[in-house]
Amino acid sequence: MENQEVAAKLLPKVLILEPPGVFTAFETEFSQKFECLRAWESPIPTDEFLDAHARSVEAMLVSGFTPITSSVLHRVPSLRCIVTTSVGLDHMDLQECRRREIAVANAGNVFSEDVADLAVALLIDVLRRITAADRFVRGEIWPIKGEYPLGSKLGGKRVGIVGLGSIGLDVAKRLEAFGCILSYNSRKKKPSVPFPFYSNACELAANCEVLVICCALTEETHHMINYEVLSALGKEGVVVNIARGGIIDEKELVRCLVQGDIAGAGLDVFENEPEVPRELFGLANVVLSPHRAVFTEESFRDAFELILGNFEAFFSNKPLLSPVMDV
Amino acid sequence: MENQEVAAKLLPKVLILEPPGVFTAFETEFSQKFECLRAWESPIPTDEFLDAHARSVEAMLVSGFTPITSSVLHRVPSLRCIVTTSVGLDHMDLQECRRREIAVANAGNVFSEDVADLAVALLIDVLRRITAADRFVRGEIWPIKGEYPLGSKLGGKRVGIVGLGSIGLDVAKRLEAFGCILSYNSRKKKPSVPFPFYSNACELAANCEVLVICCALTEETHHMINYEVLSALGKEGVVVNIARGGIIDEKELVRCLVQGDIAGAGLDVFENEPEVPRELFGLANVVLSPHRAVFTEESFRDAFELILGNFEAFFSNKPLLSPVMDV
Repeated sequence: MENQEVAAKLLPKVLILEPPGVFTAFETEFSQKFECLRAWESPIPTDEFLDAHARSVEAMLVSGFTPITSSVLHRVPSLRCIVTTSVGLDHMDLQECRRREIAVANAGNVFSEDVADLAVALLIDVLRRITAADRFVRGEIWPIKGEYPLGSKLGGKRVGIVGLGSIGLDVAKRLEAFGCILSYNSRKKKPSVPFPFYSNACELAANCEVLVICCALTEETHHMINYEVLSALGKEGVVVNIARGGIIDEKELVRCLVQGDIAGAGLDVFENEPEVPRELFGLANVVLSPHRAVFTEESFRDAFELILGNFEAFFSNKPLLSPVMDV
Repeated sequence: MENQEVAAKLLPKVLILEPPGVFTAFETEFSQKFECLRAWESPIPTDEFLDAHARSVEAMLVSGFTPITSSVLHRVPSLRCIVTTSVGLDHMDLQECRRREIAVANAGNVFSEDVADLAVALLIDVLRRITAADRFVRGEIWPIKGEYPLGSKLGGKRVGIVGLGSIGLDVAKRLEAFGCILSYNSRKKKPSVPFPFYSNACELAANCEVLVICCALTEETHHMINYEVLSALGKEGVVVNIARGGIIDEKELVRCLVQGDIAGAGLDVFENEPEVPRELFGLANVVLSPHRAVFTEESFRDAFELILGNFEAFFSNKPLLSPVMDV
């Protein structure tokens, strides 16, 4: 026991405000390599907990659900490195991190394939009405009604990918195999990509039947998918969002879905999670998923290895494995 | 009116026992080219209806749901051509057709892509728990429970395709893009196919985590996926069936799913449709679809064109476009 305590004191310290999802499987393993300062387990308030470690802890582990604001950062001036288990960074004040010379690493590309898989599945789900069909069967309506409405074929659909990073490219790779006709919008045209580029989402939507939202949520992309874009997509249009809820103007999306201004939506993310607009619950042409695009056992293992690697790199003064922002 | 009647009398006659699914959209168009003898609209019993046309009608249109038994064929000795709107032929007595020198055409490959799309979607659905997640969100459980169980990643899964015809190849093409490791079982090894071949379903299952059933239902394949095969697939195993219910021993499948001997199933077909085993309704690890793998607007249009083409070929003594059995 005493030896363990001594050993623990020698482990590098990592501050953690809330347990990240990967801890469900890997907390023990992580604790063997790092001394975890667990704010959520402490009886004292978080601010006081931060104050107590303010001058000693250099590293912090955060999930995508923990806001890392300038006031949090202000309380822990000794911080030099933050590793987030998420791909998205919209929960973090990156400007303040930069100002304070805090290096930031994210989950890199470990989740890209899982996210792309879910995007494709949500799209086929909406086009072919799969979850609604499952309700039709479980509700024992099949023997009574017999007929179930026709779906729409994925092959040949013009699909616009909004944000062609690692996830967007994985979506494209998959949809090509289904015979979709691809185009994309991103901050700038990518010379190595053969698909047509549209410089804004509205033009892209006007030339597609499907939009798959794969970009980061930033000030520029907030509510980028607004009424104008949804109208341009049109009555046969389907939206899939596996990125962040705030990229779509959710009120307008709900209105378009309810009024039939677009044909359907597959949504893994929402503006005010875990709240989901109640108007969607009655619609058969939407598929609703509780922000689980990255949640597979395999990706969690990969993400955990990457987190370990990032902290090990930081504590041995080596370059981070998946830096978002180096200092 | 009289002119129309005269014109109708000059059109080639096609016997139809029950309206096929494509008639929901294309009955009028079909009626402009052929005189439809609609048994289901006639007040007289079907047998008498058949007798009335027994010596004059040479062509028949059937759906996959209408049994064409030897006794039906016996009543209409003048038949020379049957076009079925289905891909599967298990509803028809092909031996009797051959004996009577009746040419048979089916839907060819027009539905292959739609069926393959559904197979992939059902697989991701089961692995990533999508329809169950939709229930979780619609049931407003997300804000209460927060956590939803982890899914399993599609990439890297060893997927065995049972029956590598047009549909099986389309499934393979899609799953390759997701990073699956493919192998297959079929009557014989296909020289042009790079994936490992297993000569029986049990060996295939023992080397895979997923089985996708894509073969025809025949005497040889009836209950081919039995307890032994499901056991070989194992506790992490997932079965997807978009072919015919009778290929799987459904009682054993249900037992394996209930007892956790396999991990999940995505089922578009069942042994006694539209009846679905009630034990499945309570399971979160199954996705149930009411035999709709081919039901898209686009495929119906393609299927209709092919049906028209087959009858036009028959009535002008040309080779059928998608013959199953020429005479």
